[in-house]
Amino acid sequence: MEFINIIDYIGTFAFAISGIRLAAAKNFDWFGAYVVGFVTAVGGGTLRDVMLDVTPFWMEQASYVVITGLALVFVLIFRKYVVRLDNTFFIFDAVGIALFTVVGVEKSIAAGYPVWVNVIMGTITGAAGGMFRDIFINEVPLIFRKDIYAMACLAGGLVYYFCLWLNLPTIAVQVSAAIAVFLIRVLSVHFKISLPSLKSIDQDRQA
Amino acid sequence: MEFINIIDYIGTFAFAISGIRLAAAKNFDWFGAYVVGFVTAVGGGTLRDVMLDVTPFWMEQASYVVITGLALVFVLIFRKYVVRLDNTFFIFDAVGIALFTVVGVEKSIAAGYPVWVNVIMGTITGAAGGMFRDIFINEVPLIFRKDIYAMACLAGGLVYYFCLWLNLPTIAVQVSAAIAVFLIRVLSVHFKISLPSLKSIDQDRQA
Amino acid sequence: MEFINIIDYIGTFAFAISGIRLAAAKNFDWFGAYVVGFVTAVGGGTLRDVMLDVTPFWMEQASYVVITGLALVFVLIFRKYVVRLDNTFFIFDAVGIALFTVVGVEKSIAAGYPVWVNVIMGTITGAAGGMFRDIFINEVPLIFRKDIYAMACLAGGLVYYFCLWLNLPTIAVQVSAAIAVFLIRVLSVHFKISLPSLKSIDQDRQA
Repeated sequence: MEFINIIDYIGTFAFAISGIRLAAAKNFDWFGAYVVGFVTAVGGGTLRDVMLDVTPFWMEQASYVVITGLALVFVLIFRKYVVRLDNTFFIFDAVGIALFTVVGVEKSIAAGYPVWVNVIMGTITGAAGGMFRDIFINEVPLIFRKDIYAMACLAGGLVYYFCLWLNLPTIAVQVSAAIAVFLIRVLSVHFKISLPSLKSIDQDRQA
Repeated sequence: MEFINIIDYIGTFAFAISGIRLAAAKNFDWFGAYVVGFVTAVGGGTLRDVMLDVTPFWMEQASYVVITGLALVFVLIFRKYVVRLDNTFFIFDAVGIALFTVVGVEKSIAAGYPVWVNVIMGTITGAAGGMFRDIFINEVPLIFRKDIYAMACLAGGLVYYFCLWLNLPTIAVQVSAAIAVFLIRVLSVHFKISLPSLKSIDQDRQA
Repeated sequence: MEFINIIDYIGTFAFAISGIRLAAAKNFDWFGAYVVGFVTAVGGGTLRDVMLDVTPFWMEQASYVVITGLALVFVLIFRKYVVRLDNTFFIFDAVGIALFTVVGVEKSIAAGYPVWVNVIMGTITGAAGGMFRDIFINEVPLIFRKDIYAMACLAGGLVYYFCLWLNLPTIAVQVSAAIAVFLIRVLSVHFKISLPSLKSIDQDRQA
C-alpha cells in the first residue's frame, strides 16, 4: 500500500467519523449513521465524478465502504474517548481535505478540463461531502457559516497551479498544494479567522 | 403487460402516495405535491442510474410520470379514505421496495459491477427515494431513525447473492430476494423491531 | 455577444442575486453566499445535463462563475438598494426562467428524447435551481408552496410544442414559449394567483 493510499484512508476515516458523530447527535440508528458517514466521506468525490462523467471512485474499490464500517465500529466502541480525541480528528480531517483537494484537481485535469474547472472540482472534492452531511441531518451547511473550509480547498487549487507555473516537479506541486490546504485550514481555526458574514439585507424572499 | 410491470407500477404508486401525503402535511400546492411524489417514486432509481452512467429509467417510458399523476388524483379524490387505507399502502410500499431492490441489483449486475456495488445499488434503488422525499420536505430522513427500511433492502441484496450461490434458477433468486425484503420490512414493523440508535456522544460539531 | 447570451447572463445574474440574498438572511459567509448563488443559477441546468449525460453547461465556459462573482460584489456594494430593486430583479428572474426553460427543452431535444421528457427537462432547467437553493439554506422549497413558478416553465414547454405543431419557424417557437413562461409568471404574481394547496390529510408519516 502506498503512502498516498494511507493518507486517503485516514482522510476517509476522519470524514466518516465526523458524519457518524453528527448523525448520533440526531439519534440516527446505526444504519443511518453509517449512511451519513459514508456520504460525508465519498459525497464530494461522487459529485465530482458524476459531473466529470466518470465512474464514482468508491465503486471501483471496496475500501471506502469498509473504512466507513470501521469508523462506525470505532465510534461504537470508543464512544467515551471520541470527544477527547477531537484534536486528533481535526488534524485527520484537515489532512483529508488537503489530499482530497489535490486528488480532485488531478482527476479533473485528467478529464481534460480547463484550470478554473479543475480548481472548482478540487474544492468540491474536499468540501462537498460536509455539505451533503449537513443537508442529510437537516442543518444549514456549516461550511457556509463557520471557519475557513471550502476556501482552504480553493486556495489549495490555486497554489497547485502557481507551483505548476513555477515548473516544480509533480510531487512538489502536489505536496505544496496539500500543505497549503492543511495550513490554511488549521491556522484559520487556531487563530479563529473566518470570512465576514453577509449581513441580512432584507427579510423577504423571492421564489 | 407482464406481471413484473404490474408490481413495478403498484410500488411506484405506493411510493408516490407516500410523497404526496407528506407534501400535503406541509401545505405544498398540487404541483409541489406531484414533484415530491415523483421524486419519492423515481429518486432512488435515478441516483442509481446516474452513478451507473445509464439513462434514468423514467426517461425511457412515460409510465412513471403518469402513475404519479394518478396517485395525485387518487389522493385528491379519496382524501378521507387514504388514512383508512394505511395498512394497504404499507403493504404496497413494502412490495415496492422489494421489487425495486431486485431491479436495482440486476441493473447494476448488467452494468458489470462487483457484488458489493450491486447490493448497494439495490439498497439505493429501494431506499433513496424516501430519503430524497424527506430532504425535500425539510425533515431529517426517517429511514435513518425509524424501523428497518434500508436494512431490509440490504438484506435482500445479500439473499439474492446467497441464492445465486446456491445455483437457484434466476426467477427463484429474484423471488427469494424480494420476499426477504418484504418479510423483513413487514415483520420488523409488526414486531416493532428497530436498529439501536447511536446515543449522542457529544454536542459539538466539526465542520 | 449575441442577444441570447445577454439574456442568459441577465437571468443567471438574477438567479445568483436571489440565492445570495437568501444566504445573507441566514448569515452565510461570503463564500457560502457565493456557493448558494452559484447553485441557484446553475443547479437546474446541471441536474438536467447530468440526467441527459452531457457535460454540465457551466463547465464549458467560465461566464457563469464570473457572473455569480459579479452578483456577490453587486450585493456587497449596493446592499441598501437591493431591496428597492426588488421589482427589477423579479423581472430579471422571470426573464431568466423563461429563457432557461427554452434552453432546457432544446438541449433535451438535441439529446434525442421524446416530447414529455423535453418538457420536464425545460421545467427542471427553469425551476430546480431555486429548489436546490432552498434545500441548501434549509428551508422547505418555496416553489412548492408559493406562486406559479415551476408550473410556468411546464406551460412554456407545452407552448413550445404547440407552436412546433403549428409549424412556426424556430425563432417564433422559442420566443412564444419564452413569452408564455414570462407572462404566466408575472401575471400570476401580479394577480396573486396560486395553485390550491393540498390540505393535510393526516399527521402520521410512512417511512
